[in-house]
Amino acid sequence: MKVILLLCLAIVAVSAVRNSFAFSPNRVSRAFALENAEPSDNARWFEQELDHFSPQDQGTWKQRYFVNETYYKAGGPFFINVGGEGAISEKEVTGHLMMSSYAQTYGAMVVSVEHRFYGESQPFPDLSTDNLRLLSSQQALADLANFIVHLKEQYGAPDAPVITFGGSYPGALAAWFRMKYPHVTMGSIASSAPVFAALDFYGYMDVVDKSLASVSGEICDRRIQIATAYVDKLVQTEEGRDTLAAAFNICRPLVSDKDISTMYANLMGNFQGVVQYDEEGSPITIQTVCDIMESGSDRDAFENYQKVNALVNGKNCIECNYDATIDLLKQTDHKAAGVGMRQWTYQTCLEFGYFQTTDSENQPFGDNVPLSYYTDMCHDTFGFTFKPRVNETNLYYGGRNPRGASNIDFVNGSIDPWHALSITEDFSQTVIATFVQGTAHCDDMLPPKNGTTPRGAESDCGCVRLDDSDKYVVESALAYFENNSGHESLQRMSIMLGSA
Amino acid sequence: MKVILLLCLAIVAVSAVRNSFAFSPNRVSRAFALENAEPSDNARWFEQELDHFSPQDQGTWKQRYFVNETYYKAGGPFFINVGGEGAISEKEVTGHLMMSSYAQTYGAMVVSVEHRFYGESQPFPDLSTDNLRLLSSQQALADLANFIVHLKEQYGAPDAPVITFGGSYPGALAAWFRMKYPHVTMGSIASSAPVFAALDFYGYMDVVDKSLASVSGEICDRRIQIATAYVDKLVQTEEGRDTLAAAFNICRPLVSDKDISTMYANLMGNFQGVVQYDEEGSPITIQTVCDIMESGSDRDAFENYQKVNALVNGKNCIECNYDATIDLLKQTDHKAAGVGMRQWTYQTCLEFGYFQTTDSENQPFGDNVPLSYYTDMCHDTFGFTFKPRVNETNLYYGGRNPRGASNIDFVNGSIDPWHALSITEDFSQTVIATFVQGTAHCDDMLPPKNGTTPRGAESDCGCVRLDDSDKYVVESALAYFENNSGHESLQRMSIMLGSA
Repeated sequence: MKVILLLCLAIVAVSAVRNSFAFSPNRVSRAFALENAEPSDNARWFEQELDHFSPQDQGTWKQRYFVNETYYKAGGPFFINVGGEGAISEKEVTGHLMMSSYAQTYGAMVVSVEHRFYGESQPFPDLSTDNLRLLSSQQALADLANFIVHLKEQYGAPDAPVITFGGSYPGALAAWFRMKYPHVTMGSIASSAPVFAALDFYGYMDVVDKSLASVSGEICDRRIQIATAYVDKLVQTEEGRDTLAAAFNICRPLVSDKDISTMYANLMGNFQGVVQYDEEGSPITIQTVCDIMESGSDRDAFENYQKVNALVNGKNCIECNYDATIDLLKQTDHKAAGVGMRQWTYQTCLEFGYFQTTDSENQPFGDNVPLSYYTDMCHDTFGFTFKPRVNETNLYYGGRNPRGASNIDFVNGSIDPWHALSITEDFSQTVIATFVQGTAHCDDMLPPKNGTTPRGAESDCGCVRLDDSDKYVVESALAYFENNSGHESLQRMSIMLGSA
Repeated sequence: MKVILLLCLAIVAVSAVRNSFAFSPNRVSRAFALENAEPSDNARWFEQELDHFSPQDQGTWKQRYFVNETYYKAGGPFFINVGGEGAISEKEVTGHLMMSSYAQTYGAMVVSVEHRFYGESQPFPDLSTDNLRLLSSQQALADLANFIVHLKEQYGAPDAPVITFGGSYPGALAAWFRMKYPHVTMGSIASSAPVFAALDFYGYMDVVDKSLASVSGEICDRRIQIATAYVDKLVQTEEGRDTLAAAFNICRPLVSDKDISTMYANLMGNFQGVVQYDEEGSPITIQTVCDIMESGSDRDAFENYQKVNALVNGKNCIECNYDATIDLLKQTDHKAAGVGMRQWTYQTCLEFGYFQTTDSENQPFGDNVPLSYYTDMCHDTFGFTFKPRVNETNLYYGGRNPRGASNIDFVNGSIDPWHALSITEDFSQTVIATFVQGTAHCDDMLPPKNGTTPRGAESDCGCVRLDDSDKYVVESALAYFENNSGHESLQRMSIMLGSA
């Protein structure tokens, strides 16, 4: 099984991931190693509360964070990078994120703080399902509030303004943090933030389809459809399944229906990873895989599909055995299932869904990855007999309608499938959307490549507007802070409009 | 022990309370019976989630609510009375609250919904400390969001605007609800809302002192001081304690230091209840007790103090035995300790403190009710070895600095001791304060008495401004709703300013 996580930033090469863990997500990026992050002597630790919502429990645990004081000037703001479904890295505070550029401008403290249950921030010795009761976005946000207030006190700056940054799930956390704790953060830059929890996220594959077509053209899409139809035919017979196993270097025979779904998930996963992280550092881009798919005629579609599979996965066989996947997800060791895999599966099974099915007819990857594939996985891994509580999550956070919120910039890329669950149009004067044509997941968090974006000049790529939008929120928040001793006022609106 | 609860509205006569439960709070009001509320056939029940923050628990329980559809016009708003630390009553939706007057004006649905663990809204068969893990203001607010969204769906009005009302602890809940769930409620009228959690609420007795002086004069205050000094002297010897027991009709001999603190708490409690609910229906007012205290000369102070005690408590002896108090608080039956007593003690011990000590020197009741009296009670009742988490509560809700919030009217009365923990000055253009001179706890929630307030004409009592302020928030919220399809805009501010 190949699960496409939300994770923003990871430089781990595909082959390395495959070597270390066959079910690991297909994550590529140019900037960071989230997985197997080197231990850093510069890590700091905050004694965090165990349970913010059942205060009888007075336990604590150690939450990891990194600080870069280089740019900080007394009286300056605190810029907080919100951790998510993986380990944090010291590199996040040492100049590789746009946040650091802003920090130089504003004399800000740069901080990155890990999410409970991920990386080294482990409240318990293991990840038993019972221990995971305390893993939730609500607890993570309460951690964040508690951490920020105490960090500022530690620096003798209890009244310093705070701006929160995050991409992907942490982008949603950053947005939600401004919504739920507006007295703790002045504003948030929420990159690629799926703030709408969807049980059946069929729209993910819709965007994959559109992104393939928009970058390369309709032929790429049609060839995938033809290849999938042939897979659909082969999968009907045992002989055909053996053919598939050989064609796609599948580790073990395909036995159960779930094995077959896992195979389909892997095959479409070859394209998911490429699209989600297109042009973010991996040599394999949308153009690469579409060039392969488009070569020859329609008759070559299945062969081309094999070639893409071989390119993406290298020499490693693909594990499509469902039971093996579940066994791995059940392992409660912190490191056993790759960084954050068990924990993130838990959060999707409980809070978010986000399940990338083939339930849309507007995509070329068939229909063999249904919603039940994922909900069964939740049951088989954690024993859950209920579906993810996406309605409750949307009710709690407001979903796509964050009424009453302010000072949030929702930044998304048109290529990135996750934009389908984000906010891509201005919601209000102070909850704004920045929709960048032609960029992928969290691309805006990284500095421009060669001074521009992968798809052309500044005026073409939208990155100027991007920077301006972030600045709009950051400067509005800071100007508001400087002009008001903690009090809202009409002045705020005029400041924000004046700076637009 | 006499604990002055926050409870806004209760018509139970003092003697009736004393008959049913010697430790019951001294609650008087003209409008409602919260205690021993008659079962109503009109009660409705909502299947509410058990735990909003540890979603592995999929249990539910039945939350009680009342609805009055009389004034509702299709498309109208929903006015929600937030339940608190006692049972709700059907009377809350049938015309006795200002909320109902507003409802007639705005064609609103009138709703009152009970707080989990109080009244008939019991998630568990008993109130064991382990069960009370799920009693918190956070859970209550999440209940409220879930309830409101489903109620509106039930009426086919999912997009109807909501205004939330509450007084005392529910006033704080109403304010916090607008802060934490601004996408669910458009605004809140927060009466007598102690939004700042204070471990040592010595300021309560400061306001009692000031209120006695402001209504009647300094002599009342001085006579209490003289009487207390004499009590301080008597309490030193066994003979003196016997004298006190006889003088104040104390049920059992005063043995331990805790018994003595309990006696002091009761004696000052005679005045606390009178001040908190001054002129709200009880024939015993500040003027009544001060008239008694002021009669004769300073030499009569102790005798007058006895007379006040006799007037307030009737013929019932006063239970000052600390162990008996703890035994009662430990009873886990829903009804055993009076409506909400065990539960509210639990919430104060964990979340709010609010402990009314004699730690201020600016009050005449001595210094024998220290903070440790209450924290020991928390330990002895629930086994807690930690102090109430007031810092965490203030960090979570923002305390007196609700930055980023909007559309809240904090209404307080100058007589009411709880105003010391509320917001009594405008915080922003849309978080406003209405501070009414001369009124007590939650007085603004009730219709004017005889068309005016107890202390004079409209222009004198401030009640016109009061109504206008509430209308300001309600109408601003509704106008905003009508003019915006769920989107914030600058228009909002101009609407609000235009209506000011």
